[in-house]
Amino acid sequence: MVYLYRRIIRFQDTDAAGVVYFANILAMCHEAYEASLTKAEINLKQFFTHPDYAIPVVHATVDFRFPLFCGDEVLIELMPQVINENTFKIEYKLLLEKSQQLIAKATTKHICIDPKTRQRKQFLPELLNWLNME
Amino acid sequence: MVYLYRRIIRFQDTDAAGVVYFANILAMCHEAYEASLTKAEINLKQFFTHPDYAIPVVHATVDFRFPLFCGDEVLIELMPQVINENTFKIEYKLLLEKSQQLIAKATTKHICIDPKTRQRKQFLPELLNWLNME
Amino acid sequence: MVYLYRRIIRFQDTDAAGVVYFANILAMCHEAYEASLTKAEINLKQFFTHPDYAIPVVHATVDFRFPLFCGDEVLIELMPQVINENTFKIEYKLLLEKSQQLIAKATTKHICIDPKTRQRKQFLPELLNWLNME
Amino acid sequence: MVYLYRRIIRFQDTDAAGVVYFANILAMCHEAYEASLTKAEINLKQFFTHPDYAIPVVHATVDFRFPLFCGDEVLIELMPQVINENTFKIEYKLLLEKSQQLIAKATTKHICIDPKTRQRKQFLPELLNWLNME
Repeated sequence: MVYLYRRIIRFQDTDAAGVVYFANILAMCHEAYEASLTKAEINLKQFFTHPDYAIPVVHATVDFRFPLFCGDEVLIELMPQVINENTFKIEYKLLLEKSQQLIAKATTKHICIDPKTRQRKQFLPELLNWLNME
Repeated sequence: MVYLYRRIIRFQDTDAAGVVYFANILAMCHEAYEASLTKAEINLKQFFTHPDYAIPVVHATVDFRFPLFCGDEVLIELMPQVINENTFKIEYKLLLEKSQQLIAKATTKHICIDPKTRQRKQFLPELLNWLNME
Repeated sequence: MVYLYRRIIRFQDTDAAGVVYFANILAMCHEAYEASLTKAEINLKQFFTHPDYAIPVVHATVDFRFPLFCGDEVLIELMPQVINENTFKIEYKLLLEKSQQLIAKATTKHICIDPKTRQRKQFLPELLNWLNME
Repeated sequence: MVYLYRRIIRFQDTDAAGVVYFANILAMCHEAYEASLTKAEINLKQFFTHPDYAIPVVHATVDFRFPLFCGDEVLIELMPQVINENTFKIEYKLLLEKSQQLIAKATTKHICIDPKTRQRKQFLPELLNWLNME
């Protein structure tokens, strides 16, 4: 599946160089991930604070091609893929909405664990549903 | 004028108490302000980095009534009012979209200055236009 | 008591106007509050996520006099005062360390509640200890 | 050279899962970078807003091993290395100060450009000095 998320760059996203602060690109990718979970009818409050499972990011990468400015309209393409029964990866592309210029690419890798023991556990059915969403 | 801005609470907005970090409420009010400027056709990049004028926040207040959680859908009502030829104030109300429950109230006071001398100067015509927008 | 907290302005604190983003001043005041709690031997992890009590900020104000730039060394003076058995207020002054120039003033008001019922409850002994700290 | 930066986890760094929000780990690495520049007597305000050069992050990676909680005391080890006359890379290790447990590893790659043309240009002498610092 490919999920599209639209985001306008806010003043708070920027830094004194006049452009989006580098780590905020990853935060915007996470926003796109949250929006796609909501679209699959996953309750975010429960999902991120569940006592029985947690799905932390264990690895992330990001490539920056061009700067983003306050007011820029960005489109984030999100493509999740299953790696195994307790691991998935998401690839993101950030494009300027008007010109379709590629601004940045990123990936996040997530594992499903028991938050008490930190042992890996199988995905929940909701998450499988999300991973197969069209 | 009253401007309405819709905002979904993101994981990054929250803190370890499970709710939105207090200072982020003011950041969301500023987002609503930016969205209202865009609606009045003000270019945000130019507006916030202009060499000849700056319109900093000089005072802010915020009252917190109820906590906000990841995934909550919030409506921000923004009501600007002119104080004098170089000062305006914005009042904000944050409501839960579904229940219309009042979550927080805030104000920001802004002055127009020359960024080099920090002397006050009159508003730009665009800003007067925004202040009179309906 | 007066507690002093030293803070260097980071690139992430700034925005495209080249100075600290307004709401981040309140976040820095909260850092000073956390540092003063640590000095009174309060465990921050427990304090902010305790199942039996929470001490949310219910009101905040902030006055901005001068801008802060990346690399600036700031001193935050923190002065807590008891209002009643479940309410306290903190006053903050932010000064440039070198010149002692007053940059901003802020206040936060906190109440002690039961996080499940949201009813007010009396302060914990540790907090009284902190409020009386010298 | 290896530069050490000490950082206490703040409430604002955390999210509703009770631990540091993933992208904030990269922001802390950038803080360590800024602190190391200051130690080499580089003026941060000028460095990050210079009209003639900019040194943006063009690539970043981060591995998360263990979560961090509010109040945790973290040590960040920073190891820069020159790649060529306009590119350098920094490797970071985040350790819990008490136990020396490895919490996260990260890298950032930086290039020196002319901010107007976005063409690459050679490092400044100050930066070479920093890269060779002991």
